[in-house]
Amino acid sequence: MNTERLIYLPLGGAGEIGINAYVYGYGKPNRERLILVDLGVAFPDMDSSPGVNLIFPDVSWLAERSDRLEAIFITHGHEDHVGAVAHHYSELHAPIYARPFTANVARMKMYENGQPDDAVSAVEPWPARVEVGPFSVGFVPITHSIPENSGLVIDTPCGRLVHSGDFKLDSSPVLGGPFDENLWRSLAKPGVQALMCDSTNVFAANEGRSEGSLSAHIERAVLGCKGMFVATTFASNVARVKTLAESGEKAGRKICLMGRAMKRMANASVKMGIMPEFPSTVDIRDIKNHPREELMLIVTGSQGERRAASAQLSKGKYNGISMKPGDTFLFSSKTIPGNERGVLRVINDFSKIGVNVIDDASDDYHVSGHANRPDLARMHDILKPRFIVPIHGEHRHLREHVALANNRGYRGVFSANGMMMDLSGPEAAEAGHIDVGRIYLDGKMKIGAYDGIIRDRLSLARDGHVAVSVVVDSHMDTIYGPWCKTVGLSRDGASGSPLTDVIEDDLGDFIDKTFKRLLAEDGDVEDEIRAIVRKRIMAETGKRPHISVSINQVGE
Amino acid sequence: MNTERLIYLPLGGAGEIGINAYVYGYGKPNRERLILVDLGVAFPDMDSSPGVNLIFPDVSWLAERSDRLEAIFITHGHEDHVGAVAHHYSELHAPIYARPFTANVARMKMYENGQPDDAVSAVEPWPARVEVGPFSVGFVPITHSIPENSGLVIDTPCGRLVHSGDFKLDSSPVLGGPFDENLWRSLAKPGVQALMCDSTNVFAANEGRSEGSLSAHIERAVLGCKGMFVATTFASNVARVKTLAESGEKAGRKICLMGRAMKRMANASVKMGIMPEFPSTVDIRDIKNHPREELMLIVTGSQGERRAASAQLSKGKYNGISMKPGDTFLFSSKTIPGNERGVLRVINDFSKIGVNVIDDASDDYHVSGHANRPDLARMHDILKPRFIVPIHGEHRHLREHVALANNRGYRGVFSANGMMMDLSGPEAAEAGHIDVGRIYLDGKMKIGAYDGIIRDRLSLARDGHVAVSVVVDSHMDTIYGPWCKTVGLSRDGASGSPLTDVIEDDLGDFIDKTFKRLLAEDGDVEDEIRAIVRKRIMAETGKRPHISVSINQVGE
Repeated sequence: MNTERLIYLPLGGAGEIGINAYVYGYGKPNRERLILVDLGVAFPDMDSSPGVNLIFPDVSWLAERSDRLEAIFITHGHEDHVGAVAHHYSELHAPIYARPFTANVARMKMYENGQPDDAVSAVEPWPARVEVGPFSVGFVPITHSIPENSGLVIDTPCGRLVHSGDFKLDSSPVLGGPFDENLWRSLAKPGVQALMCDSTNVFAANEGRSEGSLSAHIERAVLGCKGMFVATTFASNVARVKTLAESGEKAGRKICLMGRAMKRMANASVKMGIMPEFPSTVDIRDIKNHPREELMLIVTGSQGERRAASAQLSKGKYNGISMKPGDTFLFSSKTIPGNERGVLRVINDFSKIGVNVIDDASDDYHVSGHANRPDLARMHDILKPRFIVPIHGEHRHLREHVALANNRGYRGVFSANGMMMDLSGPEAAEAGHIDVGRIYLDGKMKIGAYDGIIRDRLSLARDGHVAVSVVVDSHMDTIYGPWCKTVGLSRDGASGSPLTDVIEDDLGDFIDKTFKRLLAEDGDVEDEIRAIVRKRIMAETGKRPHISVSINQVGE
Repeated sequence: MNTERLIYLPLGGAGEIGINAYVYGYGKPNRERLILVDLGVAFPDMDSSPGVNLIFPDVSWLAERSDRLEAIFITHGHEDHVGAVAHHYSELHAPIYARPFTANVARMKMYENGQPDDAVSAVEPWPARVEVGPFSVGFVPITHSIPENSGLVIDTPCGRLVHSGDFKLDSSPVLGGPFDENLWRSLAKPGVQALMCDSTNVFAANEGRSEGSLSAHIERAVLGCKGMFVATTFASNVARVKTLAESGEKAGRKICLMGRAMKRMANASVKMGIMPEFPSTVDIRDIKNHPREELMLIVTGSQGERRAASAQLSKGKYNGISMKPGDTFLFSSKTIPGNERGVLRVINDFSKIGVNVIDDASDDYHVSGHANRPDLARMHDILKPRFIVPIHGEHRHLREHVALANNRGYRGVFSANGMMMDLSGPEAAEAGHIDVGRIYLDGKMKIGAYDGIIRDRLSLARDGHVAVSVVVDSHMDTIYGPWCKTVGLSRDGASGSPLTDVIEDDLGDFIDKTFKRLLAEDGDVEDEIRAIVRKRIMAETGKRPHISVSINQVGE
């Protein structure tokens, strides 16, 4: 057990789509030098994380070993890969490497969160390398949906690893060069010990379609629209924003970008020379100088987010612009599971205005940025790795991807978040298990997913809150109150009386009869009060609210 | 304005899928005699109705006119058509008519809610009629997915109305007879003034498929499974339960029904002679006497509901039965928008156990119970009504269905919840607008959707709660406290101190300096306290909790 080994440990992304964070290590057991690939976020929902701003991986395992952490590598600028980089920097303190566009995104995040943006270094693509500890890491360009997306070659004393990152095999992308099969074949020459491979679309049976296939459809839709044309997609899908803008321009429209994130991403791409040929855009303030039928807006809010441009437009106005009958609204996007209700609300609100909506039911206006099942098989065959380790997927995706690998004669290795694998030898072996949690950004504070705070909030959401206060004097023999306030409960109960009255009556009886004796006996008065309130509210309303009891002592 | 007229007023179902409740009236304006067709519920979600049990239509308009309400007709036994019948009976007090199977469902609901079940009368199908006031109503059998589903013929002095209810045009259903085109053509002979028509699948471009087309696929899936086979669908989709059971039996399996709703619906159908040929089932207690590979379970929980059999099985055990690697779990259902996350959780949990999941991605194991676009057009042509009034759809469905009617030479009439239409004459005319809300069953209580209770709960869910109490004596000059309790907030704030400490400090300062003067001046002390707490919590945590302040007066 004292020889060097190569380990792999996903802290996020292997068991969900989002929150990517993958650790690689090389060295003697428990003395391995480490690198981290990606450090992303996920987004909250009312069902499991109400009120939360962002969801981070729990990197405490890594933070406790930050003296062994050589560097952080970011494959591309999407939130699920770069979003947590600034929030965890103070715990990890490792240099961050990325290609220039991604580095720019990461630096903005560092700056906005009061972290040193010079911790981020921009690096050139393959064949350039970053040498850190026992690792030599290169960024290999590959098609996705954002500029400078890369897979990583990670050379180690135990051989070459390839971390695919997010990818598709696109021969006619609208951003960057096409998938370069020869380049990727050349990576396999020295042999590949393991491929950590995107699993998002492992259930998609057909070959993926190219981003380039969309423009004709979009242009036709724009030409068919007699009013204003509005399209939405993820702001971070820079390729799609470009496809939309170019198709709109071909159809004779002036392009206007709306929504902070949309403008920011597109401007960064233009400024960095990644999209020199992006159509010139109209400023929102100048929109009124153009006839509606000559305009195409590209807006945020493809997932029906309440505050984004699309939802605001569907409710009436946004930035002084309103939609009218005869306008068209295009979802050039796919609804992420869980967001359906929000998207349908936007569609129905547009329907009320008389706007024609092209939803995501057709494949003509959206392609995925991820490799489908046959594309994954092709990538396996290009790299011919000893191990195929599925990443970037829910449990079902990872399991299916392992089966795909095994069925085609490769060794699929299943590793979900927290499962450390030893990949040094001819066989992969489990090397331990780490408890991985989730950290929530909640306003300004970081809270643990299992701290009980969220559990309490969900209980408040379902059953409301009752605050009870009782006052005793210093000798415990004069008692005032009780007073009671409810939130999130009906005013009256089944008896027809106000809830607060019946509770105060119940507690009054209790106080007269039992309270002093219990206090004297050191009994749990708070618990007793809570039980009385709980019972009465259940009888009156059938609800189980959270009950806060304060017993206040007054006087000297 | 003093001549009789025929009116139509949807109180639910025209603007959503669920909560069906349609009023028809005939008579002099504001003296019309009324009937109600269907009285259904919808189901809550965390985003907009946390903690709620059921969503009812607001029938207060009708309750205020219950002396004019002749009867309630229920088209079929699905919850979105019959679910609210018992909860609103005490307000409406009208006789309820339905075919025997549906009447049985309605009676059970009445009984369970302490309402008189003899208010429900079972009636024979067309050509039998129920004569109520100026209306003559007949139940016309039509294919859907539950026994004895019917459309209604409503003859009025202004001509014949046809209320389609839920329907599909199925020539080989597994329950009841096939769609009888000749019968439906015969309904059109006297001319149809208006067709109120199901809009659920107006966006589905191809002809609907028959329930009968599924059995071969399901049988094949069962034969291909080496372990236990488990399938889920809606318990109320009695046709599907039958298809599943028969396919399983053909594949040599013993059938076991699991989940209260599943057994209840199937038993009722068998007992009433509607499914005499239903395969004999194994009792759950006897399951252990059968080898796993000879069993097929049909279970509740097709929407990933946490407490249903499927979610329980995915978490480990249910009724002593656990799933094992090599078992198969089939979703013979479609995921309703908004339920995706729950369904994916179940699928991933099964994946962790090693169970093969057949999700709803394939069309082989599920068909819709509703007519697709070409089927709707066919129904229009069979009945050739003067007006086509889309029902049973969100706004976008109704709008699209009106367009479909208009494009094919009919007169589509758009009427969303609360829009009263006068359908007496050769042209349809708006005849008023009613405010329609939603009533929530919340534990035992009925609350209004806009009473503020749910708004408060959503705010509690996002930002938690702070209870503050301050005590003053009867002369307002001795003050104790303040005391503070938080729920759903992190214990410490950004300053590193416990939130409750910093709040109590702030309030202490305020009380020393300003409190007495404000009280003396009759200022709003509560508001002032709330502002201080709000400001501090925002500074410490970035959150905006609900703040309950109680100022308690003690002493004589």
